[in-house]
Amino acid sequence: MLAQLSILAPGLLGASVARAARARNVASRIVIWTRRPETRAELAGQPWCDEASDDPGRAVTGATLVVIAAPVDQIPALTRQIAPCLRSDAIVTDVGSVKGEISRLCAAALGSSAHFVGSHPMAGSEKTGWMHGTEKLFEGRTCFVTPLAATDARATETVVQFWRDLGGKPAVVDPDRHDEIVAHISHLPQVIASTLCAFLATKDATWGSYAGGGLRDTTRIAGSDPELWRTILEQNRDEILRALDEYENTLHRFRAALANKDYAAITHEMKRAQDYRRGLQPPA
Amino acid sequence: MLAQLSILAPGLLGASVARAARARNVASRIVIWTRRPETRAELAGQPWCDEASDDPGRAVTGATLVVIAAPVDQIPALTRQIAPCLRSDAIVTDVGSVKGEISRLCAAALGSSAHFVGSHPMAGSEKTGWMHGTEKLFEGRTCFVTPLAATDARATETVVQFWRDLGGKPAVVDPDRHDEIVAHISHLPQVIASTLCAFLATKDATWGSYAGGGLRDTTRIAGSDPELWRTILEQNRDEILRALDEYENTLHRFRAALANKDYAAITHEMKRAQDYRRGLQPPA
Repeated sequence: MLAQLSILAPGLLGASVARAARARNVASRIVIWTRRPETRAELAGQPWCDEASDDPGRAVTGATLVVIAAPVDQIPALTRQIAPCLRSDAIVTDVGSVKGEISRLCAAALGSSAHFVGSHPMAGSEKTGWMHGTEKLFEGRTCFVTPLAATDARATETVVQFWRDLGGKPAVVDPDRHDEIVAHISHLPQVIASTLCAFLATKDATWGSYAGGGLRDTTRIAGSDPELWRTILEQNRDEILRALDEYENTLHRFRAALANKDYAAITHEMKRAQDYRRGLQPPA
Repeated sequence: MLAQLSILAPGLLGASVARAARARNVASRIVIWTRRPETRAELAGQPWCDEASDDPGRAVTGATLVVIAAPVDQIPALTRQIAPCLRSDAIVTDVGSVKGEISRLCAAALGSSAHFVGSHPMAGSEKTGWMHGTEKLFEGRTCFVTPLAATDARATETVVQFWRDLGGKPAVVDPDRHDEIVAHISHLPQVIASTLCAFLATKDATWGSYAGGGLRDTTRIAGSDPELWRTILEQNRDEILRALDEYENTLHRFRAALANKDYAAITHEMKRAQDYRRGLQPPA
C-alpha cells in the first residue's frame, strides 16, 4: 500500500483516482490540492480525501506517488513547481491524453530529485468535474504508462502496479508511440464525431429530432468539453494531422467508389469495417 | 384493431412489428410470409404469428394492412406480385430505409387496387434476423411515413396510427425529403463509422485492444450488415454523395484550422458540435 498518494487539480479523472484508491485500499493517506477554496471545502468532506491542501508543494510533501490531474498544458509547470518539495524517491505521474513532449519536459523538470513516469488512463466521460468521478472508472480500461528510455524501471513498475490496483489494464508504450496510437483511436474519432455534429448543426433543426440510436452513439463524444479538446488537439497536432490526412483519403476513396457505382468495393470496405468492429472487445 | 396484419419477409424489423402488434393488441390476426421453409416452421410456433404462409399472395389475401419487410431492392417486385391478391381497401406499407423511388414504383404497381404508403421506422440494431426482434423496438423511435402528393389521406392516417400504436413517433414527410434527411442523420454516420473502422483496420492490430468507450460508441454501427448497407447506399446514392461532399468539406476545413493553428476556429467548431449533441434527445 502507498503511504501517501497526492492528487493535484482533480477533475473527473483525478477524483476517480482518489475514489478508486480509497475503495481498493491502495493508499493509506490521500492528499488533494485544488486551486479553488470552494472546491477544497467540498473535497475536505469526502471519505476519499484525508487532506485538502491549499498549496501544491505542501500537498506533495511526503508523498510516495503524485498524480497530476491538471489539463495537459499545465502539467509541466506544475511539475516544476512541486519539484523542490518531493521526496527523492517520490514518483510523479499524470493522466494527460498526450505524452511525448510532456514526458520529456516533466522528466527534465524533476531531474534527479524524483521520478516522472507518464500515464494516460483511457477512461473518461463527456461529463467533466470531480463530482462526476467514480471508483469504477478505470475498471477494464487501458491505462497507458509511458516511460522514456532513461526512466527508472522500478518507478515504471510502481506506476504499472498502481493502475492495475485501481482496476485498469496497464499498457507500457513509448511516449511518442502512445501519441500516434491515441491520435488514431481517440483523437481522430473525436474530430470525426465533432465535425459530424458541427455539419448537421448547419441543417434543418428538426432533423436531429428524427435521429435514431445510430447517430446518438456515433456522436456521443461530441458532447465532450471543447476547451479540454482544444488543448489535446493542440498538444498532439502533428500526429492528428497525419491520421486525419489518411482518414480523409479513406473517406474520399469510399466516396469515389460510390460515385463510380463500384458496389463490390463498397461491400468489401464495409465488410472489413464490420470485421474490425467485431474485434473491438467491450470493457471487462 | 386491424382485422388482419400481414407481414412479408420479416427480419429484425418485421418480427418486431409482429411482436409489438401482438403485445399491444393492434391486430386480431397476424399472417407472415417468409421464403425459407425452416423459418416458416419456426415462425409458426411463435405466439405473434397466427399463420406462416408459403406464398406472398395467399399471405396478403384478406389483409387490412400489409407490411413489406424485405430489403429495399426487393420491395417493388414484391408489391407487384401481391397486387392482384389485395383487397381494394387494403393498405400496403414497408420498412425500407430509402423512400423516394420505392414510393413511386410501389404506388404505380398497386394502381387503384389498393393504397401504398411508405414507412421507415428509425429503429434497428447491428444484429439482424427475425430472432432478434423485440416488441419494444419502436418505442420512442421516429417512424417516417412518406405519402406521395396523390396518396389517399385516410390511408396515410391509418399508417400513422399504426406506428403510434406500436409505440413509435410518426413523422409524415415527403419521400424525397425523407431520403435527404436520412442521408444526413443515418447514412452519413454509417459511412463515417465504417470508413473509420476500415481505416483503423490498416493499422497495428493491437491498437484496437487499447480503445476506450469513445471509439466503441463512435463505431458501433460499423458492425451492421454490409450487404444490407450496400443496398441502402445504392438506393440513396445521390443524396448520400451530396451529404458526403459537404461533410468532407467540413472535415477538411477543420483539418486546415488545426494545420494553421487557428485554435479559436477549432474551439468554435467543437462548441457548436457540443451544442448540437446536447440537443439530441435520448429515446423516450
